[in-house]
Amino acid sequence: MPGEYGETNKMKVAIVGSTGYGGVELIRLLQSHPYVEIASVISSSNAGTPIAEGFPHLTNIVVQDLDGVNAAEMAEKADVVFAATPSGVSSKLVPDLIEAGLKVIDLSGDFRIKDGGTYETWYKHPAPEQKYLEKAVYGLCEISGGNVIDASLISNPGCYPTATLLGLIPAVSAGWIDPKSIIIDAKSGVSGAGRGTSLTSHYAEINENFKAYKVNKHQHIPEIEQALAQAAGEPVTVTFTTQLVPMTRGIMSTMYAQMNGAYSDEDFVELYRQYYEGRNFVRVRNAGIWPATKEVFGSNYCDIGFAADARTGRVTIISVIDNMVKGAAGQAIQNLNLMMGWEENLGLGYTPVYP
Amino acid sequence: MPGEYGETNKMKVAIVGSTGYGGVELIRLLQSHPYVEIASVISSSNAGTPIAEGFPHLTNIVVQDLDGVNAAEMAEKADVVFAATPSGVSSKLVPDLIEAGLKVIDLSGDFRIKDGGTYETWYKHPAPEQKYLEKAVYGLCEISGGNVIDASLISNPGCYPTATLLGLIPAVSAGWIDPKSIIIDAKSGVSGAGRGTSLTSHYAEINENFKAYKVNKHQHIPEIEQALAQAAGEPVTVTFTTQLVPMTRGIMSTMYAQMNGAYSDEDFVELYRQYYEGRNFVRVRNAGIWPATKEVFGSNYCDIGFAADARTGRVTIISVIDNMVKGAAGQAIQNLNLMMGWEENLGLGYTPVYP
Amino acid sequence: MPGEYGETNKMKVAIVGSTGYGGVELIRLLQSHPYVEIASVISSSNAGTPIAEGFPHLTNIVVQDLDGVNAAEMAEKADVVFAATPSGVSSKLVPDLIEAGLKVIDLSGDFRIKDGGTYETWYKHPAPEQKYLEKAVYGLCEISGGNVIDASLISNPGCYPTATLLGLIPAVSAGWIDPKSIIIDAKSGVSGAGRGTSLTSHYAEINENFKAYKVNKHQHIPEIEQALAQAAGEPVTVTFTTQLVPMTRGIMSTMYAQMNGAYSDEDFVELYRQYYEGRNFVRVRNAGIWPATKEVFGSNYCDIGFAADARTGRVTIISVIDNMVKGAAGQAIQNLNLMMGWEENLGLGYTPVYP
Amino acid sequence: MPGEYGETNKMKVAIVGSTGYGGVELIRLLQSHPYVEIASVISSSNAGTPIAEGFPHLTNIVVQDLDGVNAAEMAEKADVVFAATPSGVSSKLVPDLIEAGLKVIDLSGDFRIKDGGTYETWYKHPAPEQKYLEKAVYGLCEISGGNVIDASLISNPGCYPTATLLGLIPAVSAGWIDPKSIIIDAKSGVSGAGRGTSLTSHYAEINENFKAYKVNKHQHIPEIEQALAQAAGEPVTVTFTTQLVPMTRGIMSTMYAQMNGAYSDEDFVELYRQYYEGRNFVRVRNAGIWPATKEVFGSNYCDIGFAADARTGRVTIISVIDNMVKGAAGQAIQNLNLMMGWEENLGLGYTPVYP
Repeated sequence: MPGEYGETNKMKVAIVGSTGYGGVELIRLLQSHPYVEIASVISSSNAGTPIAEGFPHLTNIVVQDLDGVNAAEMAEKADVVFAATPSGVSSKLVPDLIEAGLKVIDLSGDFRIKDGGTYETWYKHPAPEQKYLEKAVYGLCEISGGNVIDASLISNPGCYPTATLLGLIPAVSAGWIDPKSIIIDAKSGVSGAGRGTSLTSHYAEINENFKAYKVNKHQHIPEIEQALAQAAGEPVTVTFTTQLVPMTRGIMSTMYAQMNGAYSDEDFVELYRQYYEGRNFVRVRNAGIWPATKEVFGSNYCDIGFAADARTGRVTIISVIDNMVKGAAGQAIQNLNLMMGWEENLGLGYTPVYP
Repeated sequence: MPGEYGETNKMKVAIVGSTGYGGVELIRLLQSHPYVEIASVISSSNAGTPIAEGFPHLTNIVVQDLDGVNAAEMAEKADVVFAATPSGVSSKLVPDLIEAGLKVIDLSGDFRIKDGGTYETWYKHPAPEQKYLEKAVYGLCEISGGNVIDASLISNPGCYPTATLLGLIPAVSAGWIDPKSIIIDAKSGVSGAGRGTSLTSHYAEINENFKAYKVNKHQHIPEIEQALAQAAGEPVTVTFTTQLVPMTRGIMSTMYAQMNGAYSDEDFVELYRQYYEGRNFVRVRNAGIWPATKEVFGSNYCDIGFAADARTGRVTIISVIDNMVKGAAGQAIQNLNLMMGWEENLGLGYTPVYP
Repeated sequence: MPGEYGETNKMKVAIVGSTGYGGVELIRLLQSHPYVEIASVISSSNAGTPIAEGFPHLTNIVVQDLDGVNAAEMAEKADVVFAATPSGVSSKLVPDLIEAGLKVIDLSGDFRIKDGGTYETWYKHPAPEQKYLEKAVYGLCEISGGNVIDASLISNPGCYPTATLLGLIPAVSAGWIDPKSIIIDAKSGVSGAGRGTSLTSHYAEINENFKAYKVNKHQHIPEIEQALAQAAGEPVTVTFTTQLVPMTRGIMSTMYAQMNGAYSDEDFVELYRQYYEGRNFVRVRNAGIWPATKEVFGSNYCDIGFAADARTGRVTIISVIDNMVKGAAGQAIQNLNLMMGWEENLGLGYTPVYP
Repeated sequence: MPGEYGETNKMKVAIVGSTGYGGVELIRLLQSHPYVEIASVISSSNAGTPIAEGFPHLTNIVVQDLDGVNAAEMAEKADVVFAATPSGVSSKLVPDLIEAGLKVIDLSGDFRIKDGGTYETWYKHPAPEQKYLEKAVYGLCEISGGNVIDASLISNPGCYPTATLLGLIPAVSAGWIDPKSIIIDAKSGVSGAGRGTSLTSHYAEINENFKAYKVNKHQHIPEIEQALAQAAGEPVTVTFTTQLVPMTRGIMSTMYAQMNGAYSDEDFVELYRQYYEGRNFVRVRNAGIWPATKEVFGSNYCDIGFAADARTGRVTIISVIDNMVKGAAGQAIQNLNLMMGWEENLGLGYTPVYP
């Protein structure tokens, strides 16, 4: 299949949920993908109107009208569907798409948790059918990249889990930190909550404010624990705090763990650089330097830094991503690239926008 | 002395460092103090010019010219001096003021650490003379309130330590958490860094950015450890991360510790409400609710909430203050009130500005 | 009546619309009013629940439950009602309150426009009965202060009109500028749009964005034109642009007009200082200095500056207020003070919060 | 020459001022230019150190060390130089580069004003030699595009003039508005002031603040007047206000003028669409819709909307750009493309980053 598509024979994709932030970000990024053409932008509301009406930044860039949600129509128009739909919607839509012969990259949380019961405990609605859970490949690219080749259903990781797992897995896999001691203090910009309106996204409530929410209750917890358990070879339970930063984009995950030895910052830098060798989108900072969210703004990078503390025997790991890109649309495209056997950075060569 | 001063016989205070953020915040708050009159606003630069020239928000409110730094002059004009001067400056200035017979409330870090050697390790300049360190009373009002009565030198706590210690000490004192397990993930608005200009306070570098700094190296660490050790009755070493939030005011300290028992949120709420009974400025949120920084903006409150997690055996404690008020100028005035035997909330009855 | 109320015999007020931003700002400011007690906080929704549940910043400050909207009950509990209700609601509620014998200060636009037809053209719903329009006194304090004494219905000016009219009326009255040439470029923080949720107050849509809305269509236009016509002695038509600034509070009105003579900045400064002599809340900047919105944040000031340009024969007048205070709740309290014959700054002695 | 360079024979460029915001934005954008290679990144300070040290967002993207400022060296390494240097520096540097045989695109204000005396009045330092002023082509691409072909010195327009002139020139050229009546109320994000540190770029002073500066004194006034005079065929004098918005990027120019006829919004839309036909980077909004700065964030677009007001006979024109892109680095690259005879949007196909 890698040979099938190219600059002169572009692959056709459809985007469901095009009027959410994940959807418009896919549209932005796919503008520069050399092998892909957006065949259909789809929204359950507003079908029949130009997408640029609700998103004037797309004026003269995307001139298509929005299509309605219809699996058969998608199968006619496209080869691959990005489902940028909410949890609880994907679980119903994706099976239809699969059955219609489409390949699907799902950005919701619905196919990430392998155990349906665990899903239902945290998500509070019914899990998808087991056979689709089994079919779904968890697409944390730098960790599970190989598995997504030729997959027909990729479950794109959550924003918090992406930043957190890329920051923890090398150390857990190496046995350098005690998995039982992991504490994750995570912070996100507001776009992560989507375009829906509520008091918690009201400008006057968020601006000049910093607040915690869903402490120890966030639905990304089982996703993180599932992947860490795989790396550790034993069950892992984490303490996980989510907090809202008065900014639009960006996640920082600040992670704490007890070290199993007297490792230095330099040791961690070397371990991680080896682990991520050849993976362009993870950038490990030099010892003594920690990344800031703005340093990855608008791009697909995940930047990581360390502070190993001999005084306390703990290491602090800091990992940042743009939640809209590496934490959603960008990683979804990276997964498409890997699925198709293309170079993983096709269409993702964005330099961070700074300042 | 409580009888000496009042609405008709106001106490005269001088403010050194009036053109810094701590200084102008003292000026703002003291406008509504019924027993205090600002006799002199002092700055090492700009003496002889009206303070409203550099701070137009004070137009028609403070019409005095700035005075220069002169201990004898201060002693003539005032009874009490607020030293809102940087670390390294206070250590030299304060002894002169004391010797001139003034009472001093010092907002710098110079007199907080009882052990001169520890001070020098973290602050990287010489400690004040030992006799002044001994004379200085650490003024974390709700903890050490009684000690400051009639003190002649009060060392006003740091912003991070205030939020952190008010959040930790009741649990540490009660033996509910393991002091060895304490991890503090702290976040601050930019005003905490003062009015000096540098890349780290440049708008375009901070806006839409979240960044960590001085990880495990912040000079507030020994101040926190000193107070926790006192509460725990044993040495305490903490992991401490400081992070910059794109906002002007506000600190959140998110604190993690291993619980020594199966305590619930409600248990913590009750413990803390008892501990802080009668202390108006600490507000303990109901179980399941966590405070946000905007809920204390512009006011002297410290609001605290809890998330005790049976899954992990850890508790997450969240404490917020306005770094300029409870974290600096407000607590300094509260210390003045306590020192004078006045009601502690005189001049501090500000409702938070919301939104 | 001035003798009736005082610190020991506080006047009782009710606030309708207590869960909107105007309402909570009234609550904040009235905390420090020496002669006033809040007898009832009222909301059409949430009656029976504590107001601090929705506004945790009021924890331990306002412990009352919300009351429902009931004119008879208000008349029993209170002497004066602040109606912080939306346009279209006040027009129906206020007559009932008046008939129940209450004095009312209405913060909506419903009683500002003397001509019902003009009201309906701009507001798109029915005007109040003519007799209430006639009873209502327009309370732009520094201009119409005298008229509100003993009024039973005060119509509190709009936020944009307050900044704009305080900036224009002295020059128009003096005949220094041509009323036909007036262009007003106004900017506001987001709180002006209230606490209702919509895309236009969504954080991710507003942050790092500057946008115009309702250009030449804003309902504050007839209010501005009505007052300017009175000052000019002839009908006035203005060009008026409203724009949203990514901040919570603050309005700047930048105003342009052709000068009728060769006036200098200094001339304007002197004219305005004379005009506003004795009125504490208008502060006229020195020549060559223009006010910024942050210089009045949280306070009842309106600050004004000038740039008279000999090259073009035009003057630029810049006026700033905090839209929540001088543009709403603060001026409403100022109106109460004037109505009662009290000093106009009672309960309004807030120094701007800076930074 | 168009044939000379291409994907396999990239043109080599040098960037002087690489550590300023204009410089790093050139670096960001040029990453995706198919025909261009950055041969040298140059800074008067920090030569010899990796640029990614000061700009970690460039980690692994630009691995070069900074070069010092040396015309001969540049001539060896590069064909074209972007001078992203401050006014007063370019005037001295550019002649040396020209004499060394380089083509130069200068982003400063030094070569924009054809009359040296006018330059010195507004810029307060000596103008460049007259022969270089004459050689310089003013590169407002959509207006003067043809002139820059084969130019050896292009003077890249200022940020405010770009937004303003693209918004005014079609109407002035068509005689639809009276040039003598033009009033420009301009607003900019903070990045426009550069990376230098000062109180006016201090986060705590800018955040939650809106302020005017250099009212009627901004050095972009003569640049605007020079171009408008050319379009009008007579001298033009404008009223021009510059204001700082608490955001990083974005300029809105809100422009007012007396109409010479009874034109409607639709008339203006049609006039402007015809004027800019075939010019991809100017997008004219439909009648009744006005652009917001975020709708062009990170991109080279200039979006324009209208409000023609029959009540007042005036039109309000609203024009937005990203000051870093269309207002600086983007237009500079567009000028390079035009100079080389390439398609004007090469390397500039960035969809705005939204939200």
